[in-house]
Order: sequence, then structure tokens, then C-alpha cells
Amino acid sequence: MTCHLLTIGDEILIGQIVDTNSSWMSQQLNLRGIRVIGKSSVGDTRAAIVEGIELAARHADVIIMTGGLGPTKDDITKKTLAELFNAKMVFDEITFQRIEGYFTKIQRPMPPTMRDQATLPDKATILTNKVGTAPGMWFEHNNKVYVSLPGVPFEMEYLMTHEVIPRLVERFEARPIAHRTVLTACEGESMIAKRIEAFEDGLPEHIKLAYLPGLGQVRLRLTGVWPGELVPDASQQLDLELDAHLAELVEQIPELIYGFEDETLSGAVGNLLAGRGWQLATAESCTGGYIAHQLTSVPGSSAWYPGSVVSYSNDIKNKLLGVPNDLIAAHGAVSENVVIAMAKGALDTLGADIAVSVSGIAGPDGGTPDKPVGTVWMAVATRDKVVTKKHIFGRDRLKNISLSSTYALNMVRQFLDGTI
Amino acid sequence: MTCHLLTIGDEILIGQIVDTNSSWMSQQLNLRGIRVIGKSSVGDTRAAIVEGIELAARHADVIIMTGGLGPTKDDITKKTLAELFNAKMVFDEITFQRIEGYFTKIQRPMPPTMRDQATLPDKATILTNKVGTAPGMWFEHNNKVYVSLPGVPFEMEYLMTHEVIPRLVERFEARPIAHRTVLTACEGESMIAKRIEAFEDGLPEHIKLAYLPGLGQVRLRLTGVWPGELVPDASQQLDLELDAHLAELVEQIPELIYGFEDETLSGAVGNLLAGRGWQLATAESCTGGYIAHQLTSVPGSSAWYPGSVVSYSNDIKNKLLGVPNDLIAAHGAVSENVVIAMAKGALDTLGADIAVSVSGIAGPDGGTPDKPVGTVWMAVATRDKVVTKKHIFGRDRLKNISLSSTYALNMVRQFLDGTI
Repeated sequence: MTCHLLTIGDEILIGQIVDTNSSWMSQQLNLRGIRVIGKSSVGDTRAAIVEGIELAARHADVIIMTGGLGPTKDDITKKTLAELFNAKMVFDEITFQRIEGYFTKIQRPMPPTMRDQATLPDKATILTNKVGTAPGMWFEHNNKVYVSLPGVPFEMEYLMTHEVIPRLVERFEARPIAHRTVLTACEGESMIAKRIEAFEDGLPEHIKLAYLPGLGQVRLRLTGVWPGELVPDASQQLDLELDAHLAELVEQIPELIYGFEDETLSGAVGNLLAGRGWQLATAESCTGGYIAHQLTSVPGSSAWYPGSVVSYSNDIKNKLLGVPNDLIAAHGAVSENVVIAMAKGALDTLGADIAVSVSGIAGPDGGTPDKPVGTVWMAVATRDKVVTKKHIFGRDRLKNISLSSTYALNMVRQFLDGTI
Repeated sequence: MTCHLLTIGDEILIGQIVDTNSSWMSQQLNLRGIRVIGKSSVGDTRAAIVEGIELAARHADVIIMTGGLGPTKDDITKKTLAELFNAKMVFDEITFQRIEGYFTKIQRPMPPTMRDQATLPDKATILTNKVGTAPGMWFEHNNKVYVSLPGVPFEMEYLMTHEVIPRLVERFEARPIAHRTVLTACEGESMIAKRIEAFEDGLPEHIKLAYLPGLGQVRLRLTGVWPGELVPDASQQLDLELDAHLAELVEQIPELIYGFEDETLSGAVGNLLAGRGWQLATAESCTGGYIAHQLTSVPGSSAWYPGSVVSYSNDIKNKLLGVPNDLIAAHGAVSENVVIAMAKGALDTLGADIAVSVSGIAGPDGGTPDKPVGTVWMAVATRDKVVTKKHIFGRDRLKNISLSSTYALNMVRQFLDGTI
């Protein structure tokens, strides 16, 4: 079975929102062995929606649409689908009552447009949306399945999880497919490719390796598709085969790998801290709270993360972290001496076992010939060891913040691992 | 002229990366009046790439492809394009020398795969990539333009800005199109729609209003397409018309609006602070540094933002913000009394004129019947005024962090505006 994702809405074409829905949907479908073979986006016109659907149906068995189901006037998906499948629009009392109940629950008055939300094509199987107003719709037409979902991410996610995927799994029998993803930080794609060239050349035909570069990170993904006949234990055999190749891959580049699958670098750091029973403190200047955010995004982080001082001003570096003012005057806030003092200060101020500090010039202004924009010093310290590192990143403020956080977290990981 | 964006790569179909490239490209093209009428994504196979290109060429004059140009073995775009346009692959000495120079500049050894990077279809106009290794390519075939760019965002952005858009503007004459975007926070789409219904009904045919809902924010976008003959001052006339409708829209919902176009809520707060010469401090518990990150993402924020205490533990709330331990014991860390004490403490500790504090239960655990997951208290304080607010958001940790930050920043905005 193959699937095509169709995103409907001018807001995607105009680029005012980033389409995070379709990547989430792809992940979930792939996990169930449902292969996404294409994605497309069309605008909010009848002609574009019809063309998008027809092109998708040329190659896919299932077409899942998102967007265009809201109560506001730019949303015409529902009417277009009714026309396309020769359905009549009928008022659905059950859906209307559910929407009424929804507004009662969130304690807001129900807008009058909600009668339209409950008017639906009579040929659709209604997918009950318990977390929003617009229901999903499931059509079957010429042996293909057409699903229409709201574009609001958590409503789409609810309907995919509780309504769409269970129905797809029931209706189709999928060919086993499996993935293994290795997560690396702070090394470039080309260098990694060079180190694992022999491994890559030795992979069998039905297992592919892909490089997924991100900012300061590269993910390596092995994908296996079951090559032979469908035997009862095909999935298990494929899993075993992938696990063996995965183990071989890990052996090539052990020190670059911080985790697997959907782990995060901050989560990996958290696990190392939890394993030792240590508390980590952060003292952030140019990263401005982003490291703290990465760490506190991890559920349960309060077990190993007491907090951070975001010392954007020199005054706070001095007052809260005890960095001597004359040290700042002598070396500048972006210097090895100051990040060492910040990390040491954070250990005491925040009562931690290990601390990481960052000070740099994120840009776009503030650079000097000596210390251009992108210059970042960082330190990791315990009470008896300090490691420092200087990086020169680029000229983009947000990228510098993000890269600095990644390199700082990776430095904590290596420190805890004993590799630095 | 119409444009189609084609993203190439299994990593998009499998959902392991979010396609931020195409939204950026759409924005930039729209700004120049180049209309994006479709987007699609295909996998890393020759057949899928060819089909994607052919379908795109059915309705668009320009097809811009991203991805599939890296040196690693899953990248086959270049060869497929050469075949499709009957081009020969030839080694390009100039490109090779540029790549050599690039590696010299970043002080890394050049991997041997770089000879392949410099082997290019002879029918392509080479678009020089000064920020990476893979060059862009521009083909003309049957009166259509085909552009291939690397998928790494900053390389794509460099090539779009310096090579692709200038060539497109030169080659085509575009129909004037213009947009105005109004940014609102902390009110739902349906309620806004109700308040501006009469305005919306009064819009002429060639001006459309779209609702772009995000987490805790809704953007309202007016789009005008020049309806008549192309007169010399068409763009200016369209701009004036849109500005008049924009002013009318602002009058309907003034207190909901924090900015326009690509402003950010934190940037708007920064402007209000700068206007008064005030310093803002933050004391964050459940938001864990995310408010600090939002504020320090604004270039020049050090002028009005000295820093933050991320007081994840009660100990730090007490030690750095002076929140009495018995206050925490009596009311709990998530309480009105504690956020007031945190904000007051931040004023003193961080030496600011105004402070915002947040304490809540982000989840997934930690809720009680009294204070379920999603319960968040926040306070904004100066030395002589305090405003507090309690919210109950949802069950998702990252959404709670993000919503809490948005509501807290909006509260600071309203406080500075004098509307609360």
C-alpha cells in the first residue's frame, strides 16, 4: 500500500507556515510499514485541490489531506470533496452536539459558524475529533481511500492516531519496512561518509543508508525493505538483520554517537547525569537560555537540572556568578578566563556537581577583528577539572545560538563519557 | 509566471526532517511577486524524480528543486537531471578549484568525493555556491526553467538570494501581488473571525483574507492580486489599497495586535522596553529558559535584557530570587503568591525595571487534582504594581512551555501598553 500526503492551504504555498504536519504523519505511517511515496501542497482553490487529488490518486492507494476544514471563509476543501465524490452536504446532528459539548468543556461561547462545521458530505465516514471542532472525513472511491483532516497539528495528530492509522492497518496489508537511526553530533557529513565508506559499500541491496544533516548534527538512517516473499516472521527477520548492520555501524564511529532514533542530545546528557546522580548547572551568555530550554524540554529534567543563570549582562556575570569585574575588563566577556569563572561560579551559585558555561558573540553586531561574530568560548567544569574550547561559527545569530548549544551539550556528554 | 517547488529526498517522505526550505523559498518568491502554485516532495529514486519534475512542469513555468546534491551515495538528482535534459557529465575545473578553496577556508581536509561534486551536466548554467560545496544548476528546456539547489538550508538560501531570484526577475515579468500580515496573540481564530466578519464581507474580490493559526497566536493575512491591466504604477496602487484595508482591520481588534509582517512577540516587547529605556528580567520555572531564549533571539536584546534566573528547583527560587521557603511550603511552587515573590525577587536580583515570572506544571507528570498538568501561574511586576494570571493549558509538555512563554510575553506587552 502506498500513501500520498496532500496539504491544502495558501498559507503553505506562501510560506507563512512551515509544514510540520506532513513530517509527523510520514513518521507515524512509516512506523506502521505504510510507505509515503509523495507529498504535495496546493492552494485554497477548487481547481488546485481537484488537480492535487487527481495527481495523488495516479500513484497512491491512500490520499491523506490536511487543512482547509476550519470555520473561516478561506476553507473550501469540504465542498470540493463533496462535489468530487458526488456527495450531498447534510447537517449532522451528532457532530453538532459534539461541537456544542466541546465549547461547553473549554468554557467558551460557541460561534454561529459551527453549524457549517457540522454540515458534512453524506458519503463520508465521519472521524470523530475529540480535541477540536472540525471532524475528519474518510471516503472510499474507485478502490482508493481519501482522508481529509484538519490542519491544526494536535487535531490532525489525534485523528491520525485514533482514527486513520487503525483503519488503514485494518484495510491494507503492508510490506515490512524498518528503520534504524543513529544520531551524531559535531562532525560533518563528508567526514563521516569517509569513515564509514567500507561499511556502506558492504550493505545488501535491500538496505539503504541515508545521511540526514542538520545544524551541528548528522543522523544516519538505515532503511530495510523486506526483499522476499511475505513469510510470517518477515518483520522479525528484517529487524534482526538491521540490528546487525546497526551494531557494525556503531563500531565505526563510537565517539560521535550520542543516541538513537528520536533521542535528543539533551536527553542523552540527562541520562548520563541521572546515572551518576549528578546535578548540572548552566551559565549562559550568548546562548541566552537556549541550553536551559533544551535541557528542560526533557520530561523529568528537574531530577538532574536545578536551573540556570542567564547572565546576558556583565553585571549579572559578576553579581550572580562571581566573575571578577577586573577579569572581564582584562580579557573581555568572550574569553577562556571568563567562561572558566562562569562555570566555577555556577557550580557554587546553583549548587551543582557539573556546570557548563558559554560566552560568545552571536551577532549580527558586536564583532571585532580579534573576535569576529560567531566566536564562542565554552567551558565544562566540576570542582576538580575544567575543559575549555573555542569555536568560530558563522554570522547568523540564531544559528550561532543553536550551534553553541549543541556543541556545549555535546561537550558535557563527552566530559561525562570520559572522552575529553 | 508560476513556480513549483520540488523537494527531493527520502528524508522528507519518511518525515525525519521538517521541510523548512520550501516555506522560506515561498516567502522570498512571493515578496518578488513570483507566485508559487504548488509544492511536492519525492523520494531518492530516478523514477520518482522524473515523475515529480514532469508533473510540476505541467502547470508551472519554473521548477525549483532542492536536495539530492550532496556527496553521499543516496544523492542521484544530478545524474537524473543530466539524463532528462540529454546532457553529458563533465568535470568542471573552476568548480573544483572553488571547492578546494572552500575547504582551505574552513581548515578541513577535502574528502575525495569532491571530484564528483565538481562533475556537472554540460547543459547547466552553474550557480556558484560560495557557502558550501555543491553548486546550483540552472537548465532551460522547452521554454521552462529548471533549477536544482542543495538541500542544506543556508546553502539554498545563499543561492536563491544571490543567483536564482535575480535571474528569475530578469527573465520573467511578474503580475503584481502584495501581502499584509497582522499578528495577534492569545485569542482564538473563531472569536477573531466573529469580530471582523463585517470587515471581511466588505473586502473586494481581488483581496483575500486568510487566517493562519499557530500555537497561542493567529496571523491574519490580506493578499491582493492586481486585477486590471498592467499599468506602470500598478504595484503602488495595490499597496495603497491594501494599506487602507489593513488600517480598517487594525481598528476592529486593536488590543489583540502585537505587530505586523515578520515581527515577533519578543521583538515587540523589546521595542516597548527600548522606548521607555527599561530593563526586563525574567524568573522562569516551568518555561525553563524558553522566555529568555525568545527574548535573546532578538538582535540587540542586550540593550533591554540583562538576564534571567531559571529557577527550576525550589532551592534556587529561594536562594537567588529570595522566595521564602515557608511561602513555597504553604502555597506550593505553582501559586499566585510564589510567582509574585519570584517577579519581585527578579527585580532586585537582576536589577531590572520590570520582571515577569512563570511557575507551572508543564507535564507530563506532576499534576494533582487541584493543580492538573497545564496549570500555570504568571506575574508581571514593577516596583509599584503587580498583575497575576492563572492559565490552564493542555497536557503536552512542549506546548505548555511554548504557550506559557507566549502568554507571559503578551502579558508584559499589555502591561507596558497600559491595557492591563
